[in-house]
Amino acid sequence: MTLGTTVWVIADGYIPPGSTGPAPDMTSHDSACILNAGDIEANVAVRLFFTDREPAGPYRLRVPPRRALHQRINDLEGPEPVPVGVDYCTVLTSDVPIVVQHTRLDSRQAANALMSTIAYPGAAA
Amino acid sequence: MTLGTTVWVIADGYIPPGSTGPAPDMTSHDSACILNAGDIEANVAVRLFFTDREPAGPYRLRVPPRRALHQRINDLEGPEPVPVGVDYCTVLTSDVPIVVQHTRLDSRQAANALMSTIAYPGAAA
Amino acid sequence: MTLGTTVWVIADGYIPPGSTGPAPDMTSHDSACILNAGDIEANVAVRLFFTDREPAGPYRLRVPPRRALHQRINDLEGPEPVPVGVDYCTVLTSDVPIVVQHTRLDSRQAANALMSTIAYPGAAA
Amino acid sequence: MTLGTTVWVIADGYIPPGSTGPAPDMTSHDSACILNAGDIEANVAVRLFFTDREPAGPYRLRVPPRRALHQRINDLEGPEPVPVGVDYCTVLTSDVPIVVQHTRLDSRQAANALMSTIAYPGAAA
Repeated sequence: MTLGTTVWVIADGYIPPGSTGPAPDMTSHDSACILNAGDIEANVAVRLFFTDREPAGPYRLRVPPRRALHQRINDLEGPEPVPVGVDYCTVLTSDVPIVVQHTRLDSRQAANALMSTIAYPGAAA
Repeated sequence: MTLGTTVWVIADGYIPPGSTGPAPDMTSHDSACILNAGDIEANVAVRLFFTDREPAGPYRLRVPPRRALHQRINDLEGPEPVPVGVDYCTVLTSDVPIVVQHTRLDSRQAANALMSTIAYPGAAA
Repeated sequence: MTLGTTVWVIADGYIPPGSTGPAPDMTSHDSACILNAGDIEANVAVRLFFTDREPAGPYRLRVPPRRALHQRINDLEGPEPVPVGVDYCTVLTSDVPIVVQHTRLDSRQAANALMSTIAYPGAAA
Repeated sequence: MTLGTTVWVIADGYIPPGSTGPAPDMTSHDSACILNAGDIEANVAVRLFFTDREPAGPYRLRVPPRRALHQRINDLEGPEPVPVGVDYCTVLTSDVPIVVQHTRLDSRQAANALMSTIAYPGAAA
């Protein structure tokens, strides 16, 4: 089964600086949730765009065949750390079709807030 | 009236482990809200993809003609129980066109959080 | 300027039964937010699909040229009242192109929760 | 890299009147988060549609090449101030392709609520 496309955009990226509640579950985070429904490993490159500097990345992810990867942007390991409390946009490119959904958990205040959206497919399916 | 398509993807699946408030309304849940606007019953197969194991399912759902089904993933009955507090992705396939929206209610903390998105249509309409 | 399409679907409809905070702003509600960016009045028919009965409606709305209409489903006037605390799906059909976004405010608990998504376009643009 | 399209619609616009928590981070706001992934500056015109009056704008934004701009609608500077606590819809038009995501932070009550969705692409990619 092949599902999705190879380019995805999340235009609202932000890691809330601060958290209320037990880590890691309630730690504020910004996630790219990825499905690779196919039978070939997906090699995904993540690039972050900022307000006042050149893009960062690529950060490299691998999603095995028939697997989910809910990647916290907070936890990306790569060429440089991702800044907290800073606006960014995210572009994900993959060598095989994937599906991407963007979710943020913001626990800066006493009860957590959530938001989510399917990302924007930047290439034809 | 025929609306939607036959394959839908929810890339961010997660059942929050814990709830605050009266059950079942305020119980934390992750739902696939399905519309079958047509005149033929929809037979829907739900498959769950995980981070570190092969997919689970299919879980079988039926949506009668001209009916809504807001299915809590928590309540799926099928080949195996759905784990709580574990990342997954969901793929729904139907024999007739449907529309799917993904909604989570997270009441782990004192006031509930909500998130929702139209799922990703994985086949042409 | 013509923007959008003539059929829209909201698969997750629900009016939370109960509210915390001053009415009407903080009253729990489920809304269809409509833009008519064109120069001709839009006549919109709203139909509600349920789990265990035939659909209700059509409820009739008019959106003047170049106008916004954020319609609380709670406040629809038509063939019958909309039940509270009951699952439904919404289909909107218009005689001219519109754009529809679905938003819910849930204030059953102490602090309000929000969710929103662009609705599913059920016809070609 | 060129990503997105030149017309985007946010049908649910609203700036919550009131905030809880430290400004500016926790100030209630309604944002259009924009990515210009290309190599040419984007000139973006923002128009606001209301329930009972003609549209306002255009408000002018510039997004440099390879940059993110998370624009709070609260902070738009232009032909007239944006009213608070009033329903509107937003149309963004750009001279080069961009991607737009809509996010609201509502901190009227004790803990903030969030909602987000990719905006509706009003032109072919």
